[in-house]
Amino acid sequence: MHPKLLTRSLLIFYFVTAAVAAVGQTADDSVLIRRLADTILTDNKTYGNLRVLTKTVGARLSGSAGYYKAEKWGQAALQDAEAGKVWLQECMVPHWIRGGKDRAAYNVLENTGTATTGSDSAFTLVSRARVIPLDVLALGNSIGPAGGSTGGSVIMIQSFDELERRKEEVKDKIVFYNYPFNPRFVETFQAYGDAVRYRAMGASRAAKYGARAVLVRSMSESLDNNPHTGALVYNDSFPKIPALAVGLQDADKLAKALSRKNGKTSISVAIQTNARMLPDTLAHNVIGEIRGSEFPNEYITVGGHLDSWDPAEGAMDDGAGCVQSIEVLRALKAIGYQPRHSIRVVLFANEENGGRGGRAYAAAAKAQSEKHILGLESDNGGFTPRGFTLSLSEEKLAAIQPWIKLLKPYGVYEFEKGGGGSDVNPLGPQVGAVVGELRPDSQRYFDYHHARNDVLENVNKRELELGAVNMAALVYLVDKYGF
Amino acid sequence: MHPKLLTRSLLIFYFVTAAVAAVGQTADDSVLIRRLADTILTDNKTYGNLRVLTKTVGARLSGSAGYYKAEKWGQAALQDAEAGKVWLQECMVPHWIRGGKDRAAYNVLENTGTATTGSDSAFTLVSRARVIPLDVLALGNSIGPAGGSTGGSVIMIQSFDELERRKEEVKDKIVFYNYPFNPRFVETFQAYGDAVRYRAMGASRAAKYGARAVLVRSMSESLDNNPHTGALVYNDSFPKIPALAVGLQDADKLAKALSRKNGKTSISVAIQTNARMLPDTLAHNVIGEIRGSEFPNEYITVGGHLDSWDPAEGAMDDGAGCVQSIEVLRALKAIGYQPRHSIRVVLFANEENGGRGGRAYAAAAKAQSEKHILGLESDNGGFTPRGFTLSLSEEKLAAIQPWIKLLKPYGVYEFEKGGGGSDVNPLGPQVGAVVGELRPDSQRYFDYHHARNDVLENVNKRELELGAVNMAALVYLVDKYGF
Repeated sequence: MHPKLLTRSLLIFYFVTAAVAAVGQTADDSVLIRRLADTILTDNKTYGNLRVLTKTVGARLSGSAGYYKAEKWGQAALQDAEAGKVWLQECMVPHWIRGGKDRAAYNVLENTGTATTGSDSAFTLVSRARVIPLDVLALGNSIGPAGGSTGGSVIMIQSFDELERRKEEVKDKIVFYNYPFNPRFVETFQAYGDAVRYRAMGASRAAKYGARAVLVRSMSESLDNNPHTGALVYNDSFPKIPALAVGLQDADKLAKALSRKNGKTSISVAIQTNARMLPDTLAHNVIGEIRGSEFPNEYITVGGHLDSWDPAEGAMDDGAGCVQSIEVLRALKAIGYQPRHSIRVVLFANEENGGRGGRAYAAAAKAQSEKHILGLESDNGGFTPRGFTLSLSEEKLAAIQPWIKLLKPYGVYEFEKGGGGSDVNPLGPQVGAVVGELRPDSQRYFDYHHARNDVLENVNKRELELGAVNMAALVYLVDKYGF
Repeated sequence: MHPKLLTRSLLIFYFVTAAVAAVGQTADDSVLIRRLADTILTDNKTYGNLRVLTKTVGARLSGSAGYYKAEKWGQAALQDAEAGKVWLQECMVPHWIRGGKDRAAYNVLENTGTATTGSDSAFTLVSRARVIPLDVLALGNSIGPAGGSTGGSVIMIQSFDELERRKEEVKDKIVFYNYPFNPRFVETFQAYGDAVRYRAMGASRAAKYGARAVLVRSMSESLDNNPHTGALVYNDSFPKIPALAVGLQDADKLAKALSRKNGKTSISVAIQTNARMLPDTLAHNVIGEIRGSEFPNEYITVGGHLDSWDPAEGAMDDGAGCVQSIEVLRALKAIGYQPRHSIRVVLFANEENGGRGGRAYAAAAKAQSEKHILGLESDNGGFTPRGFTLSLSEEKLAAIQPWIKLLKPYGVYEFEKGGGGSDVNPLGPQVGAVVGELRPDSQRYFDYHHARNDVLENVNKRELELGAVNMAALVYLVDKYGF
């Protein structure tokens, strides 16, 4: 904004607020929240921080060089936001590496007849072979085959029920789980919750019946062909077989080829992945704090996770949540608000393939008998805000309904009963904190989640900022009124 | 979705709905709306139609070959959606053409000193000239200079107040309006409403004081450099001088150069544009209708505009509104709903640079003494839905609040008092219809509006579909209950 224009707006703004403030408490709150919004919407810090994180740090999976670079970035960004105190909190994290480019292809062999060859009248089988590459990414925590390559004929499985029915057919096969997102779920996280078991548990369920490897339809409803990685969990009772996510266009292509198969066709899949797990290694939560003026030993935590999957920049997941959390602190400081409680920003380690950072933070809080009022997380993408979930009783949720009026001008129109994200959730059982998370619009999240296109360019600056505005406003209201 | 899975979901769905339907009216409504949502979210028609419109028709400004191709597309799409009757409604439209590529550049001339040249000891001025191109698009309805080129020294103006103060300096200059979007407006349409007067009226206001041409900072808060065109309105009392939109990065660059200018620097701008206005030509609104079972002579109109600016595909503006409107009709037919009133889908002609289609439709409705219940428009982009505006009294708005409960699962959480878009608004004064429009999230709209990147790839399929779901639901509720 042009400075002259801004000055004029602010003048009008102060005249209006002076009039409104006389009405009482709520008017004061709306004025303060407007000031938070103004600093966040005009200072370009949120998106600027995300630009540095994504473009100069980039991918930052636990144990990677990128993660340690991100820790440095986080400390500097928190200092820049004027956190009074910034420190690192140790935790051991899994160290999974992709080990190079993953590859897969399917091979369609069709016997088209027989022919006489040469002058000796011998018959030869005439066949047509086609090799079609698949865009794949090994799943996080998966382990590649000995020598890096495996393959076999492929069996398409639509559900675990079908797997159980057809378990006799699975031995030595490549199992292709082709369970799609259900488009009838309006909230895409429900479709994800419904489908993600095939990514998380599909490998071991197939290994139980002797499968050599699994391909999993990506957890997405995008229109492109990017494979979406993400963690699996092996069941130690069964062999740890390779597992790879397939892009949706290629998954459809493979499904079509399989459905056209007849007695004369055989379809096999070849897989290359060198994924492996190294010994656990040391990483850190990055923490910044401003000390409370009245209750310095009572805490409000706001955070996102600093680690991200390796194929992209982790802009949505969860660079967005990190820079929004930092912006909450920066904006409160910038407008000169003195919080009553201590406010901590935590950039959590290892959300993606272990959750160790969140557990370490809650365990330390418990060990030090800290009192935690709220753990608030942003890990659902930097999209336009719609609501918050909070782990409150129906009565307490009803009691804070008047706050909605204060948030609605910035996009949040509901509080829902629910938990936080996986990083703040341990604060519930460990120290009895209320936990919650920002619920932005979910429609685009799985277009980018864990895929190569999770880059800065797919984050809208203003949507990201409005998330931070609502988080800052909620932190302010909880700091002022409690629950 | 895999057919087997779909069958199972539908079975569960029907058991649930049978139980719920017994509860009464509202449960029936929620069941019917769920069926509308299911067909829209699973049949891929909305986005499929938009793909054809954007990729096979493309740009379709009034009078262009693209517009006539779009009329054919609209008729076919409405027939495909099973509109019982499809027809064209004539109207004369302006016929503006860009006339080729627009160009502009600024030239910075700095006198860096004097030097002795040659052996005759004469002094020569030493200067450094730089020519920096600007990414520009002539504004719609603007007229290029004689011969296509003009230029002159440039004066930056931040507001009409400043123009008035500095009117003596404007003669023979190129006026550069550099008024930015105000980021403090959470709803971006407010920032647009605040800034757009410089695009609409800036040329004539500057021409009044003898300016040769104007450059206007694009109506956007995007981070890229795409210029955003859009209509201007000349005041016939003053010369019709050229007017071009400048991309934001280039506008900032030019502003910086001007602010650094000192006594030794001169900055001039060269402009090329062959934009011109041809005689009015014939175009058509494309209309599809399903006949009402109880009140065939009472109408609910739902529509978007078929024309679009020439630099892109008009995916957001307003391909989205067209395909959503068609989808309303298709979905109602697909679930076997028999509307009580006649439902018309109108793909309006010439919204962008004349508004003739909307006025022609309302004038014809008046001429035929038609009774219109509602005119509903979608022309704010295919983004995730948040609300509707409706031209109802506070009392009537309060009376339909219970509908919000039915729409909220699909994203719409509020009805606001307000008008429709410019195409349905004439139905208010002409035939007394209630008018309204879909209000999707506004944060990304001006990243694409009237710019080269208004393409299919920037429309999210599910966000587009959810807009159609809410429009279909509202049309159903109005058809059933009226206002």
